[in-house]
Amino acid sequence: MVSEPFMAATIDEIKAFAVQCFSGARGSHDWDHTERVYNLCMHIGGGEGVDLKVLEIAAYLHDAGRTYQDESKGEVCHAEKGAEIARDILAEFPVSDEQKTNIIHCIRSHRFRGNHQPKTLEAKVLFDADKLDATGAVGIARAFLFAGEVGAKLHNPHVEPEATEPYTAEDTGYREYKLKLSKIKDCMLTAEGRRMAKERHAFMEMFFKRFGTEYDGHK
Amino acid sequence: MVSEPFMAATIDEIKAFAVQCFSGARGSHDWDHTERVYNLCMHIGGGEGVDLKVLEIAAYLHDAGRTYQDESKGEVCHAEKGAEIARDILAEFPVSDEQKTNIIHCIRSHRFRGNHQPKTLEAKVLFDADKLDATGAVGIARAFLFAGEVGAKLHNPHVEPEATEPYTAEDTGYREYKLKLSKIKDCMLTAEGRRMAKERHAFMEMFFKRFGTEYDGHK
Repeated sequence: MVSEPFMAATIDEIKAFAVQCFSGARGSHDWDHTERVYNLCMHIGGGEGVDLKVLEIAAYLHDAGRTYQDESKGEVCHAEKGAEIARDILAEFPVSDEQKTNIIHCIRSHRFRGNHQPKTLEAKVLFDADKLDATGAVGIARAFLFAGEVGAKLHNPHVEPEATEPYTAEDTGYREYKLKLSKIKDCMLTAEGRRMAKERHAFMEMFFKRFGTEYDGHK
Repeated sequence: MVSEPFMAATIDEIKAFAVQCFSGARGSHDWDHTERVYNLCMHIGGGEGVDLKVLEIAAYLHDAGRTYQDESKGEVCHAEKGAEIARDILAEFPVSDEQKTNIIHCIRSHRFRGNHQPKTLEAKVLFDADKLDATGAVGIARAFLFAGEVGAKLHNPHVEPEATEPYTAEDTGYREYKLKLSKIKDCMLTAEGRRMAKERHAFMEMFFKRFGTEYDGHK
């Protein structure tokens, strides 16, 4: 969390600012997540004809408000806070006002359960990239890592995921998959995002089927 | 951890005793692990013509010394401690002395890095079942859950796993796979254990290959 006002003049300065927003963050939601989202943005955005500068800055800053949300136990919305941080940091940045507005919109609308829908192409790409990072093999790994962080069990096969509470011993990787990750494929906003989400979904489905069989000692 | 002396007269009593040895244990190594190892023992042992009573008791008690190892930060060996616990609890149990000696041998020799090699068929089955539970989809899930429990990162692609330390932020799921889980297939002691380990190994290999590609944003 950064308290002093800071204004960036280059993308490298924005990146350096964003990195230190994550000091002390959990492994399931740390700076590396931002780097993966950045890579996914470049992959998806490259084929969609977007403003790459807008996308690049939005990707670096999209979770800059994350620690505010964590430390307020969810009172602060990290997407809203991130948009505010971006507005301040971009005050003197050498891009047009329209680009600044777009970057702020990208960040404000990237949250799954947020109140703002992504309207620009860049915002749609960021939304898809951020969601994609919760799917596939990386999504599985993050789900179990998070379960370990909150002290959850490995699995809870005799209880319906819907009947359990988050941030408890019942907050398992499978619960995360069933209640959240398995729904991501249906909310993608770009063609490439949709294609990748579908493939990553199939992988998760296969993984958890095998996981259940192995869990019972049958494979 | 149990301080009072306790002697079991039925397998149900042994199971009930074993369950409460795990109160407060981490999700990556809790009672559910014992249940999975029990199921795997029955699966492997069924086809190998073993003494099922010996195997059943040994499976339930094999990690009864786990909390002693954890609380002593590794000073106490959980296999040695578990063997002691079993000797006490089985003092009056209605099985032959030869069976008791076998059960104690099974528990003492089940540890991967232990000083005792499994010599009886039952000990080999337990060894294989215990190792198998660290492989495949369950092994992947346990590796990331453990990483979360010790506060590790999701991945550490720029550092060789051999150069990193356990129980730190570098103790990632991939490190666990590379240094330990990937070697399990070569130390199986029964035919069915070997077959299952080979198949589970192939699954882990495929998972981590995909994980690396996704991590870089390419899939």
